[in-house]
Amino acid sequence: MAIKKTEGSLTTPKGFKAAGLRSGVKKKRNDLGLIFSEIPANAAAVYTLNAIQAAPLHITKASIQNGRKIQAVIANSGNANACTGAQGEQDAKMMQQKTAELLSIPEGLVAVASTGVIGVPMPMDIITPAIDQLQPAATPAAAEQFSAAILTTDTFPKTTCYEAKIDGKVVTLAGTAKGSGMIKPNMATMLGFFTTDAAVEQDALQQALKAAIDQTFNCITVDGDTSTNDMVLLLANGLAENNSLSPTHPDWSTFTELVKTACEDLAKMIARDGEGATKLIEVDVQGAVNKQEAIQVAKSVVGSSLVKTAVYGTDANWGRIIAAIGYSGASVNPNTIDTSIGSIQMLKDSQPVSFSEEAATAYLENDSILISIDLKNGDGSGKAWGCDLTYDYVRINASYRS
Amino acid sequence: MAIKKTEGSLTTPKGFKAAGLRSGVKKKRNDLGLIFSEIPANAAAVYTLNAIQAAPLHITKASIQNGRKIQAVIANSGNANACTGAQGEQDAKMMQQKTAELLSIPEGLVAVASTGVIGVPMPMDIITPAIDQLQPAATPAAAEQFSAAILTTDTFPKTTCYEAKIDGKVVTLAGTAKGSGMIKPNMATMLGFFTTDAAVEQDALQQALKAAIDQTFNCITVDGDTSTNDMVLLLANGLAENNSLSPTHPDWSTFTELVKTACEDLAKMIARDGEGATKLIEVDVQGAVNKQEAIQVAKSVVGSSLVKTAVYGTDANWGRIIAAIGYSGASVNPNTIDTSIGSIQMLKDSQPVSFSEEAATAYLENDSILISIDLKNGDGSGKAWGCDLTYDYVRINASYRS
Repeated sequence: MAIKKTEGSLTTPKGFKAAGLRSGVKKKRNDLGLIFSEIPANAAAVYTLNAIQAAPLHITKASIQNGRKIQAVIANSGNANACTGAQGEQDAKMMQQKTAELLSIPEGLVAVASTGVIGVPMPMDIITPAIDQLQPAATPAAAEQFSAAILTTDTFPKTTCYEAKIDGKVVTLAGTAKGSGMIKPNMATMLGFFTTDAAVEQDALQQALKAAIDQTFNCITVDGDTSTNDMVLLLANGLAENNSLSPTHPDWSTFTELVKTACEDLAKMIARDGEGATKLIEVDVQGAVNKQEAIQVAKSVVGSSLVKTAVYGTDANWGRIIAAIGYSGASVNPNTIDTSIGSIQMLKDSQPVSFSEEAATAYLENDSILISIDLKNGDGSGKAWGCDLTYDYVRINASYRS
Repeated sequence: MAIKKTEGSLTTPKGFKAAGLRSGVKKKRNDLGLIFSEIPANAAAVYTLNAIQAAPLHITKASIQNGRKIQAVIANSGNANACTGAQGEQDAKMMQQKTAELLSIPEGLVAVASTGVIGVPMPMDIITPAIDQLQPAATPAAAEQFSAAILTTDTFPKTTCYEAKIDGKVVTLAGTAKGSGMIKPNMATMLGFFTTDAAVEQDALQQALKAAIDQTFNCITVDGDTSTNDMVLLLANGLAENNSLSPTHPDWSTFTELVKTACEDLAKMIARDGEGATKLIEVDVQGAVNKQEAIQVAKSVVGSSLVKTAVYGTDANWGRIIAAIGYSGASVNPNTIDTSIGSIQMLKDSQPVSFSEEAATAYLENDSILISIDLKNGDGSGKAWGCDLTYDYVRINASYRS
């Protein structure tokens, strides 16, 4: 069954409302947001692998582990509530409690997410009263306010929405995310929130989300740093009234495609909007010994500072590409590697092919760059996404706190 | 037995000569160099782990594997002779052969090393006649010419020399290296050459070199890229006439300290001279579960683009430090981490300590920055070195080929 891209947002799936406002933690932009489902939704979540995890993650994990359902998400930007000790745990708990009171729902149904500066206590004198001002609504404008509230150094909000027919019912899945710095395979300073009105078994929901993330969010890199606060949440409230989905349902693959496609959309937007980035880089690897190694090679190339600066400088420096293939750790045959930038082949069997530097430079002026690699060493294929490394990355990060 | 730093160079150890000149591969600087020992020297070598290895490495590896002795090294910069296929192998072989003819020694005693652009055939019409012009001499000036000939984007030559008494004889060990870009743990675009007049068993020599590299060259990172051409060679010709060294010799630890200290000197110079760098960063980790994990944490912190840009911007951003500790993959207790920048403590038991931002900024204006971490999770300690990430890194690498 085909899936269809729509103009919808977080509040398009039935029964979801959203809100966002500026509490005052940030000087100019929204910094506090809420997602609310009319009824408790089955919840799936994936968290950062960083050994240091922020307080909100502990609260959210506990809620989901407890009842496997979430009805509301309170999210803030400007302060990550990480490395804030016992006080940070209390503050995250307080955010959960205040949100539960506002919505008259049990605390255990509220997830908490934070992003921003590490190690500064949450300004609860600002946050607590602001929570009371949140007025969730089922409008596109309310969804926009939420998407704006989770941004940090992002330059644009990231949203996506798809629909499909399942059991004759229209099912909608929407998502929003923030990224920008500290973006690297295995999650990064990124938050992602998905709403769907599909009815899905909780175990199956978790499985679909995990599988999608492995091929999307975990395949993007901006700077190789993995943050303490990453989290992707997927809420499925069942109001589309399809028969509950699980891998045995005939339309299961339609649902997993919805999740994967929405995740890929947002992952690419995050890569394109990497700090200081001017270009999205996609690396497509064929002929690896398996899918995992293909992704490993793709990540190695797209994560190479030298490749990233070469793309910024419109320099068709395939030597740096083959070097990054070589140190990826994947099994490669040093004599069989083909590489193209766009449609211009540069390497055949690991040796240079003559090509027009002018054409290559012209291609590299585009804002989406494709690097294709065929290792001719097996049947595995995979992709990864990243961005160029620019003066602005340095400028932004040399003075983030100030 | 104490080791002593001296003003010596590659030609200070007895019996070593050097030469360097501009062949014309590069426009302005030296690009071809020679080291020659009066007698064949026991040789130890460590090579890049990149799966794609340049032709000169194959030639050098074969020579050392064959007789375990080397009498001369021919090295060039400007062209890496990598990804150049069968022609590249022939060209490296030709460089070996021409050098052997010049010096009237067997080809199998000549090592070949190249650094520079990847994938361009060696301009043998320039290199071959230039080899004939090399006139090795046992002078400091000749050593300087060699050190200059191996540089690429390096901004200064890197040399070091130490002496010690072994069996009542003065033993000298000198080294030179080039680094700059593509520098990362497990060797990178770096070449290192060491000469010593110590008599050392070949197996022991290899063991001493490998152990030293693991704690020095393999603990530096500039940009996370590992090149196809890295090589460190250590030649020991025995002309100091000490009793041949091996681990059972009473002065063995003196010799290993000579090697390690010389390697550390050059490793730190390479880190300081990373492309675009303005500062050397040293990360000292205590309290890891073992030495290996301490080094793993130190490398993770010193390799973080966010930490590197923060140091450039004199921003005491310890949040990025603890994030990099967390994603290092080492076993850490999230609640026991202490961190200082210089002598200013910023984290105690993973929570912020109040400190003077002005004092921290003032410290970060220095050109050598120390980040100290105590994980309080064991007895392992280790260090890693790197540099800040600056606008100039981007400038240099956005247009390296042009």
